[in-house]
Amino acid sequence: MSTPLRIGIAGLGTVGLGVIDILRTHATTIAMRAGRPVEITAISARSRRDRGIDLSAYAFEADPADLATRDDVDLVVEVIGGENGPAKETVEAALASGKHVVTANKALMARHGTALAALAERHGACLRYEAGVAGGIPVVKALTEGLAANAVTRVMGVMNGTCNYILTKMEATGEDYSDVLTEAQALGYAEADPAFDVGGMDAAQKLALLTIAAFGTHVDIDAVKVEGIEQVTLTDIRYARDLGYRIKLLGVARSGDGAVEVRMQPCLVPAQSPIGQLESVVNMVVIEGDFVGQTVFQGPGAGAGPTGSAVVADIIDIARDIRVPTFGVPVADLREYPTTTAGSPATYYLRLTLEDRPGMLAKVAAALGQHGISINQMRQTEHEGGSAPVLIVTHACLRQDLDKALDEITGQSMCQDTPVAYRIETV
Amino acid sequence: MSTPLRIGIAGLGTVGLGVIDILRTHATTIAMRAGRPVEITAISARSRRDRGIDLSAYAFEADPADLATRDDVDLVVEVIGGENGPAKETVEAALASGKHVVTANKALMARHGTALAALAERHGACLRYEAGVAGGIPVVKALTEGLAANAVTRVMGVMNGTCNYILTKMEATGEDYSDVLTEAQALGYAEADPAFDVGGMDAAQKLALLTIAAFGTHVDIDAVKVEGIEQVTLTDIRYARDLGYRIKLLGVARSGDGAVEVRMQPCLVPAQSPIGQLESVVNMVVIEGDFVGQTVFQGPGAGAGPTGSAVVADIIDIARDIRVPTFGVPVADLREYPTTTAGSPATYYLRLTLEDRPGMLAKVAAALGQHGISINQMRQTEHEGGSAPVLIVTHACLRQDLDKALDEITGQSMCQDTPVAYRIETV
Repeated sequence: MSTPLRIGIAGLGTVGLGVIDILRTHATTIAMRAGRPVEITAISARSRRDRGIDLSAYAFEADPADLATRDDVDLVVEVIGGENGPAKETVEAALASGKHVVTANKALMARHGTALAALAERHGACLRYEAGVAGGIPVVKALTEGLAANAVTRVMGVMNGTCNYILTKMEATGEDYSDVLTEAQALGYAEADPAFDVGGMDAAQKLALLTIAAFGTHVDIDAVKVEGIEQVTLTDIRYARDLGYRIKLLGVARSGDGAVEVRMQPCLVPAQSPIGQLESVVNMVVIEGDFVGQTVFQGPGAGAGPTGSAVVADIIDIARDIRVPTFGVPVADLREYPTTTAGSPATYYLRLTLEDRPGMLAKVAAALGQHGISINQMRQTEHEGGSAPVLIVTHACLRQDLDKALDEITGQSMCQDTPVAYRIETV
Repeated sequence: MSTPLRIGIAGLGTVGLGVIDILRTHATTIAMRAGRPVEITAISARSRRDRGIDLSAYAFEADPADLATRDDVDLVVEVIGGENGPAKETVEAALASGKHVVTANKALMARHGTALAALAERHGACLRYEAGVAGGIPVVKALTEGLAANAVTRVMGVMNGTCNYILTKMEATGEDYSDVLTEAQALGYAEADPAFDVGGMDAAQKLALLTIAAFGTHVDIDAVKVEGIEQVTLTDIRYARDLGYRIKLLGVARSGDGAVEVRMQPCLVPAQSPIGQLESVVNMVVIEGDFVGQTVFQGPGAGAGPTGSAVVADIIDIARDIRVPTFGVPVADLREYPTTTAGSPATYYLRLTLEDRPGMLAKVAAALGQHGISINQMRQTEHEGGSAPVLIVTHACLRQDLDKALDEITGQSMCQDTPVAYRIETV
């Protein structure tokens, strides 16, 4: 058996300890699969407090950047987190020293991934991030290797367990968003400050990484359209269900006309589709290729075991001398497509709360028609009092045209509330 | 850019032509991803008849074994088919000459895979077969690479599109097995001689390959329990649905106690599970690992595009110098576990057509009880005439005990028909 691959682990949180657990539990099998032993030599964390396991066999570094340049470390596992600061310094120090890096840090990779990949290439090192996208599901590998024979036509994902838990629980129990969020926090499915999850940014960072790998293009994370689930109401979840749809926080990326469209927003999807059937905290990624057609990948998106599984798979790849470029092609071959939010044509779900006066429906239809938007379905639901809830499913149109029509409808005071509009994604 | 990887294609059927189409359509992207051009240099087929595309740029060999040893071929794509004969001779000739082989031939690999992998290892060549299992879904790669950090606890799959089409169509339309089979043949979803598909052997070969990769053990294909869907009736499909299940031709492999259990048979699965929701010709593979938990892979299981996609992905891997052992570990490290058909404990669905006489139900319950089988649910459905259909869901028991009880029930002439018994697989 050849020389061991020596691992330094920067960060001893849930994921770091999960990685140590796997490398210890499966040391023999991993050596057999990798063709060489994989050994932890050094660790780094902010404190040396007791973590319930014996870490005394490993050298300890208080500064992760020092760990990254140790002579007895060939590969650094970065599980510190954060898009700048110590995580970035550690990864840069490791790559600049020609050491391989495996990271679970989607924020870092979404912001600096292509620059870091270029640094890795210059120094003959590998940079891998499977654990940063959809936890234990090997979906980066699917895009960069397993489906590499295809031109990807679309990639979609439900990649935030907190949001999918909240949306499916609201539907199942009839509870409001805020009640379900409180429960999710009690169960550990949502953070005390949930903004990063429910606001869509966590999932958007994952989507950005998938997009680079899928379309071989740079992505400007600041230009990605990001909308969270905070405004999704039980009313809309139920109306959507009546129409045969479910509301999901869905990431979608497409490429065409020299641009890449990247959106993370609540969408309606057919209830019977794989994404429509996805329950609770499970993640799902759908990859469509010109030759393969539609493939679907489902699994746990978070937690020590699943995330650790992805980190260790990347380690085994590197131990096996697998040298796939970080995003599937060398950084120099990535396209410079602009990231757009425009959105391809789609049908839309609209809910309007109209003043209950004669002629209002006709006025709405006219406003939509003036902007080229035709109506596929319209339902006025039963109501009491002075307002009439109206549901509309449009034919395919552009969001910009729809927004103009909605502005006009709002401007003419036909509605009592702000109109609700969700894209219906065909899956 | 470095030296081209030169490809010889043995077999110009649907898959062979699909591979040529992909390599031509995406030549530039593939070269970018692989880091070197991938070029077809030679082809082989039984005849030189016109196939609607210009193949004049490639050298032609009438004998595929001659193609396999050409100096201008580095990698042979074997898409001839068959577990022996020209396919085996071609693969052996190529590997013995140190040439890489990518095959879509599950029959060959299920029968001779480990011997061929050993031959490849001796000559420093790669042998890959992603296209042989579940078409375009990169599930061999998931097992041998993406989930390599795990001890797999169970692998399951619906991997024959013909069978899943027939079963879901029977349920949707209420048509009988033979009518739906005829339609499937007309649509090209079933062969003129459907025995290999509906009898379960096609799916069993795929399952055997997944089992070797999942558990790192030899599998004796002749010892795999294989049962087809020919006996599945509309009656059972409907009763199963009433109980909250669907009937699928399900492959399941597990390892424990120094043996590997491999079964391909109609099973009941919960209607709301991913497998239970699988419609039409789509394939699905579920892989469970000790750290990652449950992962699910879905996609097209057949056809020129999906199968070609898997073949070309293997080619790109080899062009990238990826050298993962054929089954994830070197052949010398594969375990010699015996292949058992025993089956772990499970609950069972039983349908008995009892003589409509007093005391029959009590006798059945007694016969089951004598063999340690307790009843979870029993339903006697409405009936006319002299026979009473009875549905039973057992508590967990061993198939061998159940079979003894059913023998006794049959022996005492309580039933008018042979009892129907399907395993309920928890998913």
